[in-house]
Amino acid sequence: MMLINGQPSDSVSALDRGLSYGDGLFETIRFEQGAAPLWARHMQRLVAGCERLRIPQPDAELLWQEAQQASGGQTRFVLRITVTRGLGERGYAPPAVALPTRIVAAFPVPVISNELYTDGIRLHRCRTMLADQPLLAGIKHLNRLEQVLARAEWSDPGFGEGLLCDSHGHAISATAANLFAVVDGVPVTPALDRCGVAGVARAEMLAAFPQCQVRDLPLGEALRASELFLSSSVRGILPVQAVGDNVYAPGPVGRAMQQHWLDLGFRDALAYSTRPA
Amino acid sequence: MMLINGQPSDSVSALDRGLSYGDGLFETIRFEQGAAPLWARHMQRLVAGCERLRIPQPDAELLWQEAQQASGGQTRFVLRITVTRGLGERGYAPPAVALPTRIVAAFPVPVISNELYTDGIRLHRCRTMLADQPLLAGIKHLNRLEQVLARAEWSDPGFGEGLLCDSHGHAISATAANLFAVVDGVPVTPALDRCGVAGVARAEMLAAFPQCQVRDLPLGEALRASELFLSSSVRGILPVQAVGDNVYAPGPVGRAMQQHWLDLGFRDALAYSTRPA
Repeated sequence: MMLINGQPSDSVSALDRGLSYGDGLFETIRFEQGAAPLWARHMQRLVAGCERLRIPQPDAELLWQEAQQASGGQTRFVLRITVTRGLGERGYAPPAVALPTRIVAAFPVPVISNELYTDGIRLHRCRTMLADQPLLAGIKHLNRLEQVLARAEWSDPGFGEGLLCDSHGHAISATAANLFAVVDGVPVTPALDRCGVAGVARAEMLAAFPQCQVRDLPLGEALRASELFLSSSVRGILPVQAVGDNVYAPGPVGRAMQQHWLDLGFRDALAYSTRPA
Repeated sequence: MMLINGQPSDSVSALDRGLSYGDGLFETIRFEQGAAPLWARHMQRLVAGCERLRIPQPDAELLWQEAQQASGGQTRFVLRITVTRGLGERGYAPPAVALPTRIVAAFPVPVISNELYTDGIRLHRCRTMLADQPLLAGIKHLNRLEQVLARAEWSDPGFGEGLLCDSHGHAISATAANLFAVVDGVPVTPALDRCGVAGVARAEMLAAFPQCQVRDLPLGEALRASELFLSSSVRGILPVQAVGDNVYAPGPVGRAMQQHWLDLGFRDALAYSTRPA
């Protein structure tokens, strides 16, 4: 079910600036047993994005109520919240007083086999490079053509995700997940001040595992890592099994983060918690 | 009046990938006395954009018919055509078979005083820098947050446009127009292979004035130009009067391009053609 500005509807004005210019933000939030363990972090990022784009902030309390309504009684779903700058005249100038559009919709949780959680996924190495744009880096805005182009590079279902770099040869992320690498025994996740989306699952793991470093991660270092895994607020922690000829085995850091994910209340891949690392 | 996929309507699905990811393209096409002198160039750019993003191309003949219908009998208007990849499931992966969404809508032509065409406009120097993304450069896609941020930098109506640079200190364009500078007697317009939109009015002027150079244009060179002016398929050729403390007088190259614009059939700023340059 979908709500637009609080009303059941499945369409928006063709003059919405979200459509005209991608002038807005979104969040995809996983609900489990009616709870959204990372809700506060999603709201925090949404507010930060609104501040960056100077879009009036939506009321988090109202969004929570609308999430309940959109769920239609389901307790396990992915909620997408989209906030745009609303209607606009033709032209880039933002209206002096914006009346944002709020879209709240529930979707099924994607099915990911336990095997992928236990053994890991293979990554396609994307040719698409993320552009440096510090003004837009980190926030989850609606200008996502880079991710669309990167994701369109492969259709082989054998690849579970793609590895994206910036134009300086730094590993940045997957198309829809963040990247962690264990380098010389230290967990590292790429700095995202010039490109990339600062994921909510990443933020949760950084808070729970303060030994993680956030820094530039040259691709070579990432490929030589002893562990490589992805974080996503929808899919949780996914070990990487291979990038091209480089192969990886799931290791203790990724397993600990998977356990933390389960401890948050997400019911994924229970298998891995009962198998030895 | 607005047509969505050929039907009178003013709304699109909230699941359209144009809204979700800015996954699409647009054109704004000026009609004058029922004709669109740059129609063929607009269609050419739209097709190039569709090829780049691998969106099925719309039928130009059909778009022309829909333009007539959307005009509602007006003969002078700006037509916006938006083409998106259409509906999508959640996730960046493009659907194997895309059914594009086509939005055709007519808007009034913005009123620009003769004074601005004769004496020129002042430019705000934007702090927002355009990111290098060769995969998206040149085409008129829907990911326009950089332009929105740049345009939001000023509200003083004394500025008619903003001057945008890339991160290497090259002048690139205005927020919604292309840039020409006369440097050492030679007209130059910035190369747009890493960022910027390759404007249709720019293409027309390059064809009509083959002495123009297309190359990287360091900001310093642009500011020292003997003439500076903008090209836009909606607003035509607008001289630049000032960028900060740098002042410019309209000169023979810009005047010749303004005359060419009039010769195409656009009825703007007839005053300047009767005044000495």
